[in-house]
Amino acid sequence: MLTRQDCEARDRADPLAPLREQFVLPEGVIYLDGNSLGVLPRATPARIREVVECEWGQDLIRSWNTAGWIHLPHRVGAKIARLVGAEAGELTAADSTSVNLYKVLVAASRLAQADAPERRVILSERSNFPTDLYIAQSVAQELGWALELVEADEIEARLGPDVAVLMLTHVNYRTGRMHDMAVLTRRAHEAGALAIWDLAHSAGAVPVDLKGCDADFAIGCGYKYLNGGPGAPAFVWVHPRHADRFWQPLAGWMGHASPFEFTPDYKPAAGIARYLCGTPPILSMAALECGVDTVLAAEPLGGMAALREKSLALTQLFMDLVEERCAGHGLALVSPREDALRGSQVCLTREEGGYAIVQALIARGVIGDFRAGDARMPDILRFGFTPLYCRHVDVWDAVEHLRAVLESGEWRRPEFNQRHAVT
Amino acid sequence: MLTRQDCEARDRADPLAPLREQFVLPEGVIYLDGNSLGVLPRATPARIREVVECEWGQDLIRSWNTAGWIHLPHRVGAKIARLVGAEAGELTAADSTSVNLYKVLVAASRLAQADAPERRVILSERSNFPTDLYIAQSVAQELGWALELVEADEIEARLGPDVAVLMLTHVNYRTGRMHDMAVLTRRAHEAGALAIWDLAHSAGAVPVDLKGCDADFAIGCGYKYLNGGPGAPAFVWVHPRHADRFWQPLAGWMGHASPFEFTPDYKPAAGIARYLCGTPPILSMAALECGVDTVLAAEPLGGMAALREKSLALTQLFMDLVEERCAGHGLALVSPREDALRGSQVCLTREEGGYAIVQALIARGVIGDFRAGDARMPDILRFGFTPLYCRHVDVWDAVEHLRAVLESGEWRRPEFNQRHAVT
Repeated sequence: MLTRQDCEARDRADPLAPLREQFVLPEGVIYLDGNSLGVLPRATPARIREVVECEWGQDLIRSWNTAGWIHLPHRVGAKIARLVGAEAGELTAADSTSVNLYKVLVAASRLAQADAPERRVILSERSNFPTDLYIAQSVAQELGWALELVEADEIEARLGPDVAVLMLTHVNYRTGRMHDMAVLTRRAHEAGALAIWDLAHSAGAVPVDLKGCDADFAIGCGYKYLNGGPGAPAFVWVHPRHADRFWQPLAGWMGHASPFEFTPDYKPAAGIARYLCGTPPILSMAALECGVDTVLAAEPLGGMAALREKSLALTQLFMDLVEERCAGHGLALVSPREDALRGSQVCLTREEGGYAIVQALIARGVIGDFRAGDARMPDILRFGFTPLYCRHVDVWDAVEHLRAVLESGEWRRPEFNQRHAVT
Repeated sequence: MLTRQDCEARDRADPLAPLREQFVLPEGVIYLDGNSLGVLPRATPARIREVVECEWGQDLIRSWNTAGWIHLPHRVGAKIARLVGAEAGELTAADSTSVNLYKVLVAASRLAQADAPERRVILSERSNFPTDLYIAQSVAQELGWALELVEADEIEARLGPDVAVLMLTHVNYRTGRMHDMAVLTRRAHEAGALAIWDLAHSAGAVPVDLKGCDADFAIGCGYKYLNGGPGAPAFVWVHPRHADRFWQPLAGWMGHASPFEFTPDYKPAAGIARYLCGTPPILSMAALECGVDTVLAAEPLGGMAALREKSLALTQLFMDLVEERCAGHGLALVSPREDALRGSQVCLTREEGGYAIVQALIARGVIGDFRAGDARMPDILRFGFTPLYCRHVDVWDAVEHLRAVLESGEWRRPEFNQRHAVT
């Protein structure tokens, strides 16, 4: 049987432990929701103050040149590229994940229309994150195409001659299940389809090798494991073999070859720059850079491989402790036990009370979240483990709180059963 | 002949003068570029610190509920609505101007396809802001439509039976010329076309009455006269008669009727909320709210009508003083002399040296900007007058610097003739 002392010993032996010092962690909080909103890096407030008070306040419009605002999307993009197996100049920070998905889906559909016009299906997973499905539904409707949704284990079989694009989220937001990007991209290509990957729950959480997997397009989120702050800009990557073939439809001035020549005709910039659209939100973009820097700080300590090792240790520990210490309380594991299939989160389910249990945990300072089920999918109690700042002892304490909430029945209190707008 | 003392007297008599106290104005700078990037409101740094350090840093994910992040786009939108003749609930802050233009152009084209499928032309002005033309070009290309560009005085005559959408920027970015929104919207409707207005250089600068003019769609910019900070989110307005007829194509989760039910099918929210797409950039959105508040602070003093009166006084003064004090130096006025045709900026041109003159002025602390001409359009020396913080004495001093730059010939120095990436 594991003890809290064992967890403390693991933290003492953890070579990544110093990375936690990069963050502001509120007193009395065990934060297991970095998969939804990453915590505040210590460097961010000073950097934002500099952007607001010096660059904007004092240097004003000149900062587009003197502070390099105009290059910020590409500078941040080049840093994110290092985390996902891409090169500088292939990836840029821009807009939201949803907007970027629209860009790459339309670009992919144009490729398909040019190269294989008989293909008119976008294939995705039924439990993909809803905004991905909404955007795909919109694009399919505009094109007169179909969006087909299947279960994870039906994907390969459904890759038929009518499929133009396989659009998947690498790590499932509900279950934490991770697809094999290399295998599914290869299967898609063998079947004549293009592969778009949403890295929302992957970037900064698990190793990703976009070039090694030969993916076609990728997008991802800045405010989860990249710690970029609420609503941070997202990112978009396009394989160089496709980048120059089409303009994406949101052909705004920042994607123009010479935005400040103000020519009336759109002439797309070379490469990924044409995936920019309007003027980037500099405050949010600067905060994103600080967040990405916290992940890059792991590079001298082994980088994403070392973070992955710790992440797996944390999620394994959580699953082991829940099984051991919360047995008999009706919890079941939704996330895969097998390491290769699991992202950096663990999802539990319970026939009843999932929402209230999460609320009771939050009241105790253990912050996870809840995702309601439906006819097809169970309720989810979701716990994200960010290896940059999560400790083994946090896992122990979180499970002890979970056990206490279940044993005491405190989750049945009325205040834990009132729904909020956002959970 | 006017004197500097006359200008000082006008400032003393100016009922709007106290509004200037709302802003951080760098020492030694006369800022005539608020039409490109508004100055920093004094309230912004503290508000951003609160968002970053308290709402994000301490309350983390809970702030979507407790700090009302989820309502922020609509709260800011309702404030902007008061400045442009719209109602709360009809306008929301979101994305960039370019992205919002794409949304409303596609929505307008769908209306046209449903109601008048023979109309397949988007009509705009040749000297419209380039990103508007690029987005329209992209939409026209997707639809197999044509984008037609004419001169300002040719618009009415070109409103034929093939025109689906008239897309105009209310105040021209190059010349400061302002269209008559009421007349052109009526002409468009009489000709069977829809009217989209870009308020980038209008919102917070000149009175706008979207409902009174019966406009169909409008978009606008948050970082110019609204003082929202570099790359602040933009806004989008849709007349209620159209809002529920279609989803716009960027159908992301924030525009869903129940984003946090995570249903696989897109069900658009009622009204303007369906014009949201992804997660909003909260830091930049919070700064935008501070900026909008600086304009709303004029409401007890007469609001946009009073700001307009002062703006016209400032631009008239600038034109008068340039004519009087810079005569014989080859400057010509590009902006209209007639008040009803002029926004809140004055543009000059000169056969030679426009870029260098602007650089020499910047070196003296007088910040305007330069827009290069081409075969059709002259070079522009552009000066924006934000009535919230610009004084009559600033106008006097700016013209004196301009006179000195021209008389001394200092603009011929090599350092003023080196081009930057962004001007």
